Amino acid sequence: MWILQPDDLDSIAIGAGILGTGGGGNPYLGKLKARRLLREGHRVEVVGVEELADDALVVTVGGVGAPTIGIERIDSGRETLDAVRVLEEHLGKRFDALIPAEIGGGNSIEPIVAAAHARIPVVDGDGMGRAFPEIPMLTYFIYGVSCYPCGLADLRGNRAVFTDGSDPDFLERLIRSAVVQMGGHAGVAVAVMSGADVKRTAVRDTLSLAMRLGGDVRAARTLKQDPIEVVRSTLQGRLLFTGKLVDVDRETKDGWVSGLVRIAGLDRDSGRSMEIAFRNENLIAWQDGEIVATVPDLICILDLESGEPVTTEILRYGYRVAVLGVGCSPLLRTPEALAVVGPKAFGYDVPFRPLEQDLE
Amino acid sequence: MWILQPDDLDSIAIGAGILGTGGGGNPYLGKLKARRLLREGHRVEVVGVEELADDALVVTVGGVGAPTIGIERIDSGRETLDAVRVLEEHLGKRFDALIPAEIGGGNSIEPIVAAAHARIPVVDGDGMGRAFPEIPMLTYFIYGVSCYPCGLADLRGNRAVFTDGSDPDFLERLIRSAVVQMGGHAGVAVAVMSGADVKRTAVRDTLSLAMRLGGDVRAARTLKQDPIEVVRSTLQGRLLFTGKLVDVDRETKDGWVSGLVRIAGLDRDSGRSMEIAFRNENLIAWQDGEIVATVPDLICILDLESGEPVTTEILRYGYRVAVLGVGCSPLLRTPEALAVVGPKAFGYDVPFRPLEQDLE
Repeated sequence: MWILQPDDLDSIAIGAGILGTGGGGNPYLGKLKARRLLREGHRVEVVGVEELADDALVVTVGGVGAPTIGIERIDSGRETLDAVRVLEEHLGKRFDALIPAEIGGGNSIEPIVAAAHARIPVVDGDGMGRAFPEIPMLTYFIYGVSCYPCGLADLRGNRAVFTDGSDPDFLERLIRSAVVQMGGHAGVAVAVMSGADVKRTAVRDTLSLAMRLGGDVRAARTLKQDPIEVVRSTLQGRLLFTGKLVDVDRETKDGWVSGLVRIAGLDRDSGRSMEIAFRNENLIAWQDGEIVATVPDLICILDLESGEPVTTEILRYGYRVAVLGVGCSPLLRTPEALAVVGPKAFGYDVPFRPLEQDLE
Repeated sequence: MWILQPDDLDSIAIGAGILGTGGGGNPYLGKLKARRLLREGHRVEVVGVEELADDALVVTVGGVGAPTIGIERIDSGRETLDAVRVLEEHLGKRFDALIPAEIGGGNSIEPIVAAAHARIPVVDGDGMGRAFPEIPMLTYFIYGVSCYPCGLADLRGNRAVFTDGSDPDFLERLIRSAVVQMGGHAGVAVAVMSGADVKRTAVRDTLSLAMRLGGDVRAARTLKQDPIEVVRSTLQGRLLFTGKLVDVDRETKDGWVSGLVRIAGLDRDSGRSMEIAFRNENLIAWQDGEIVATVPDLICILDLESGEPVTTEILRYGYRVAVLGVGCSPLLRTPEALAVVGPKAFGYDVPFRPLEQDLE
């Protein structure tokens, strides 16, 4: 257990940006909201998964909607708390802790904001160990936690509980359509779990990993270290490629940012090329036409100078980048997980190719 | 109080079709579902508004969605009951009675189906005294009943409760978008009321009116009476026009069927013409360019021979019709009601013109 400090939030925001593998939305506004709450005297404890009582009541909370709208229309910071509260009223019980849905991007911070308001701890873990674009892709649901009941709230005080239903895919559709009506952004509380459920299904220690990662990047600037090597080392990843962005095919459609980015090699990769397909998050990386990394492994595009993440919405010609491959959590590599988050789930008819295979 | 008989349903279906003023959807399938339930031994009591205890718990229930889909995709007959049940679970209480949202079209029958399943009575009244296309147009909401909580259910077992929110217009939008995801049809339970609320806000005795009206039309066939005169007399309405449909401009857009129908006069109206604007329901009638009837008064287009209602979706060239004007409930004629259901609410910049004004 530790008490979150305002400075921790700066590190988490950087780390979560990197772990977001291009997606997950911008953690900047969430960071500002959380920092203000801490400065106002709110106290947020981060507890380890193993510290949870088996019968603790835990739920995931986050923002749903287009990241661009999250930036343009500042939310009240209360939607996520409202989503938690409407679930509590429905269940007739209070939650003991909140846990992030994903450690990538803005939703790594949102539970901290809600937890500060609700005066309960945040769990050091999440349901992806990275970012993914859809609710059914949470490890909680992959491993059998029900997605009902689910709470939804917007900044105008509209609140709803989805009490029962056919499956997480359909819940996703209902929530997306409601969020469009709600102006593009809403708070969602979903995956009502016991502490035992969390221990069985969560990717552990990812909030502290994001904090350590961001702290290392910040320290590298001060110490004039190579930030790419620092990130690679902290994440125990592989440097897949170094180069210059030469082309971006990007399409915003049905709420997704999809496309293909082409990178021409520099330095050690001079004369080679890399292509990366993305849909919100980076999905597949080809080097000279050969697949070198596949979702759910993490494909992180970083600014070569600063080590800062280059998210899919800001990809543009001329960026000098490093591409890191990072092995995902073993929880995402089982057959049942790959059916939901593997390449085929994103429409690519290729097998999942664990990064380690390249190390032969 | 009376016990509904299978034969009553045939009369209610005809009467509700006429009171639907062109909209409200087809009551035929609802009638079949209700009749089967009655034949299987279910017993449905109809109780008068005045018979309700002041502290009785009452709710409106009906189908929401495009009427055409309701015909093409037969519903399970359980969505409306499921919508009631999800609200009961949320409230932790059982309802004592159900009341129709509207007496026009299919939603006059749906509460009977749900009441048969739930083994509770149906109230002889509704929230419109006719049909209207939107949830905020219910007298219950016009006179201050909250539209929260609202239960929603589809045939695949998806269920939700909208617990709080800004206003009925926004609830309408949320429900419409959810219903689109649900395949175009769902059951909704809304307007949780006490018996005292019902006494204050409901249009009374409309289920029995629909039954009497339909019974009179059926009797007229047997007795070779003029069905138009029978309907006019039962509803104490005015025969506005008799003629032949010569043109229909109709557009299906955003879930509405909107347009204008032109009728060339026959017999006593020979040489004259009538135009009627509609959006699901008939809204404004002009005779030779002069407004003779306006929403919320009822403008009913009836087949000249049979007295059967001609709904907006089946309007076509050649129909010989009578147009009846019927004064609406006084509950729809107050300033607060006209703000929601008057001509301006439908985009026509004309004042409401009570039918009686023509009688000078």
